Amino acid sequence: MKTALLAGGGSYDSNGCFSIKHSFYDYTIAVDGGIHILRELRIKPDYFVGDMDSNNLFLEENGAMYLLDEDGNKTSDVIIEKLEPEKDLTDMEYALNRAVDLGATDIELIGAIGSRMDHSISNMNLMKKYSRVFDSISITDGMNYILPLVSGLELSNMISYTMSIVLSEDITNLSLKGFKYEVFDFDIRAESSRLNSNVIISNQAVINFSTGSGWVVLTKE
Amino acid sequence: MKTALLAGGGSYDSNGCFSIKHSFYDYTIAVDGGIHILRELRIKPDYFVGDMDSNNLFLEENGAMYLLDEDGNKTSDVIIEKLEPEKDLTDMEYALNRAVDLGATDIELIGAIGSRMDHSISNMNLMKKYSRVFDSISITDGMNYILPLVSGLELSNMISYTMSIVLSEDITNLSLKGFKYEVFDFDIRAESSRLNSNVIISNQAVINFSTGSGWVVLTKE
Repeated sequence: MKTALLAGGGSYDSNGCFSIKHSFYDYTIAVDGGIHILRELRIKPDYFVGDMDSNNLFLEENGAMYLLDEDGNKTSDVIIEKLEPEKDLTDMEYALNRAVDLGATDIELIGAIGSRMDHSISNMNLMKKYSRVFDSISITDGMNYILPLVSGLELSNMISYTMSIVLSEDITNLSLKGFKYEVFDFDIRAESSRLNSNVIISNQAVINFSTGSGWVVLTKE
Repeated sequence: MKTALLAGGGSYDSNGCFSIKHSFYDYTIAVDGGIHILRELRIKPDYFVGDMDSNNLFLEENGAMYLLDEDGNKTSDVIIEKLEPEKDLTDMEYALNRAVDLGATDIELIGAIGSRMDHSISNMNLMKKYSRVFDSISITDGMNYILPLVSGLELSNMISYTMSIVLSEDITNLSLKGFKYEVFDFDIRAESSRLNSNVIISNQAVINFSTGSGWVVLTKE
């Protein structure tokens, strides 16, 4: 297992009901504005990936680029990858590819959702895509804890959390066990609002289905 | 044309770059916590739909339910529909069905996205579903203006706005005209991040495609 924490330019409330899982990560990648979240968490990134348009954060010296700390001092051991502002992939997808190259297996994304809905949904889509590459991947902003729903999954030790399933594709043969509202062998259209606001009532809550995809969103009311 | 404004319990910043389109609506529906947004906008709802768990907003008198104004006075002419807290449809879907019954044709949703990602995506899915029923439907929170992408569409007089396409289903034969980055007859997977952050450069920007679906998110950088 090799853990990686990727911080994007969205929201992260460290006083929320969900926090990052580990004290240390094998790899930490700041994605553009995500550097501010890492600074607040006092986590020094191993990599900085972005188009460097944030002022006062970088120093170019003898052709090399350095990340500056709060006092304006050069930070050593941070590998900086400057991306072109105009490119096909988003900075977050670039960072996910870097995590793949590094051999990371378990990924946590923070600052991946926020007020920009295009970035939020794009990152949720990326999480689905990269769930086929990594052993685990999740997004949290402190308030929401989001998992890709591309195959059956088990939610352990999360009693009393609110659990919504939001879909991107129609789902077939859905079964929910360990929830307040259970269903068995249930087909549901992607655009339905029926799977919102369920509650976990068992230490082993299980979601199973045959085809379809979407996301599981956990919150606390 | 019969316009309807539906306000949910999410975010709406009336100082943002997108605002509601009309001064008056044929029908205005407050959906639960959305009543607070309407109060701020000084718009009296025609309908209040919700489970009435917001304190100090209602008075029950002789079996009738009244919405109270800021001074605690009964508001007349507001039809109150109390929903069971435990039900299959979300309050927003109930309100959309009410708008259908009323004969509304052009729908604007505010307070439909916000910090709760399950509610946000659920409402974006509902917008897609009901785009087949209404002539037009959109979501704005002031910062984002979101349209369902279920068939080709034209964006008029929006030069310099950032336009992202986020998909729920793979799209085929996509053509973008009037944007900084144009494509022609392009197939793209739902989970790709390639269609993020385009810019409108023509008064008539046009999106066309054969199959697939998702959303268009407009923002201002």
